[in-house]
Amino acid sequence: MHAYPELLQLINTKIAETSFGSNPKELYDPITYMMSLGGKRLRPVLTLMAADLFGAQIHKSLDAALAIEVFHNFTLVHDDIMDNAPLRRGKETVFQKWSMPVAILSGDLMLIRSIDLLAKTESNQFAQLLAVFNDTAAKVCEGQQIDMNFESQLQVSHEQYIEMITLKTAVLLGASLEIGARVANASEEDAKNLYEFGKCIGIAFQIQDDMLDSFGQTAEVGKRIGGDIACNKKTLLLIELLASVHKDDATLLQSLLAETNEDVKIEGVLALYEKYQIKAFAESQKQQYLDRAFHHLQAVSVQADRKQVLISTAQDLMQRMN
Amino acid sequence: MHAYPELLQLINTKIAETSFGSNPKELYDPITYMMSLGGKRLRPVLTLMAADLFGAQIHKSLDAALAIEVFHNFTLVHDDIMDNAPLRRGKETVFQKWSMPVAILSGDLMLIRSIDLLAKTESNQFAQLLAVFNDTAAKVCEGQQIDMNFESQLQVSHEQYIEMITLKTAVLLGASLEIGARVANASEEDAKNLYEFGKCIGIAFQIQDDMLDSFGQTAEVGKRIGGDIACNKKTLLLIELLASVHKDDATLLQSLLAETNEDVKIEGVLALYEKYQIKAFAESQKQQYLDRAFHHLQAVSVQADRKQVLISTAQDLMQRMN
Repeated sequence: MHAYPELLQLINTKIAETSFGSNPKELYDPITYMMSLGGKRLRPVLTLMAADLFGAQIHKSLDAALAIEVFHNFTLVHDDIMDNAPLRRGKETVFQKWSMPVAILSGDLMLIRSIDLLAKTESNQFAQLLAVFNDTAAKVCEGQQIDMNFESQLQVSHEQYIEMITLKTAVLLGASLEIGARVANASEEDAKNLYEFGKCIGIAFQIQDDMLDSFGQTAEVGKRIGGDIACNKKTLLLIELLASVHKDDATLLQSLLAETNEDVKIEGVLALYEKYQIKAFAESQKQQYLDRAFHHLQAVSVQADRKQVLISTAQDLMQRMN
Repeated sequence: MHAYPELLQLINTKIAETSFGSNPKELYDPITYMMSLGGKRLRPVLTLMAADLFGAQIHKSLDAALAIEVFHNFTLVHDDIMDNAPLRRGKETVFQKWSMPVAILSGDLMLIRSIDLLAKTESNQFAQLLAVFNDTAAKVCEGQQIDMNFESQLQVSHEQYIEMITLKTAVLLGASLEIGARVANASEEDAKNLYEFGKCIGIAFQIQDDMLDSFGQTAEVGKRIGGDIACNKKTLLLIELLASVHKDDATLLQSLLAETNEDVKIEGVLALYEKYQIKAFAESQKQQYLDRAFHHLQAVSVQADRKQVLISTAQDLMQRMN
């Protein structure tokens, strides 16, 4: 079994060696730029790990792994336009550095190139690979749209929130693993269990991300505490608070949501989170999805020691919290 | 052999029967809206005609035909954002009717769904089908980018112009035919000849489109004569005029390009088109590509009478000119 750093190195070398095209440069430069911004390359590494789990040669899953990373970066390029985001990984977004039309079009081409890469995969299960990939791609778009809808939606339920993060983030982690498993000719059941493992890890990770914003340490998070609170973002925490607040605190909460002084607002909402034990609630939710994830991993029919790399990777992901 | 109206009916029925998804509605309503705007459905009809040419059951190529129509409509949804276009086929564009983010995302999903549809095609040549489709999709994006580059580019050569319209428009007509041929298990040579036939027809059609703007009758064109001239659009006509104008007319042309009175500008440029016989030049260019198209069609190894539907379709396309 290969460890994370080694697999990350393989992915980064593969990206550096891959040409996405060159002419016209306004179309291809943004793709090269975006793909070289780095990051932890979690999704393609998971694909390689899944293939490795079933004893396949890692190189066999490298094109599929890159397909997923290119797809993921395509979603970032388009999301950054929709979110009007100036920065991505500390660098200018494609939309900001070039223009909106260039970001739309180079994103489109990244989606096309991701299918090209997937199609290069040698597999007698190619139809299934493509079905998983495309089905997941559609879900990611649905998740992004539901997330945008939340901004103007007055009430968001716990279930709607979980559905949104499942679609927007978690299914792609699941698909990264499933595709690696299928390239390695894993059984249908093993492939599906790995998908569920990745999906549940993704949900747990997203819940943790919400918690970090409110309960993390500024230095660890790398951004100011309370950013989500300041903009009334419908996180699991706020949704749960709105659902559990007593009548006598409801007016206070509404006035805090309308508060323009950010410090007052953040301090006030954090106090309500404390009073209603929102952190403990979120923690238990996160744990529930983690348990479910490990349950699915356990069901995969390979020796327990081969699963250690996936377990460590999941644990590392969850260790950003103090 | 089936005629155009019959095949068009098949496509429209197929579109009406196809669900692209439903939830969230902000994502799927624009797709249903866009796909129901109508039009001549030239590309999918060509796919069916190509399959029919080789005696395949037309229904076998229906998913692939729809894939191409959905792909084409995806490009329109995204192009309308980039061009800031309010209307498409007399109705509001997706971007105008919903929003820019919705148009980006529903366009992305159309691209994904077009691959889904292609994948439903029963074919032992699926890898080639996907390769042709994806290669063409990338070229269409390149053409759109080159077209956008032209706006700020001072000099555009004849060759650059032909390359742009080839990529942006013509290759998709070629691919529509090639894919139909491949679904029908045509030989490599026949598939390639049909591709070239479609591509050359596409180039001729685009040249004709440029001519219509300057030399058409308002009633036929459905829009005002000289729209391209008014906005200094780098059409084949203007490119040829700029290349052939004598020194003593060069200053006049430059002042016309800077002219703010549209009527003066259009009248002046039309007079120069007349003086330098630009219409005859464009007509001969168009004819050259038409000849090349029919040469490739002739080389296709099926009985001449089976090709009549494709010949009539091409001729009808060219008859919008008086």
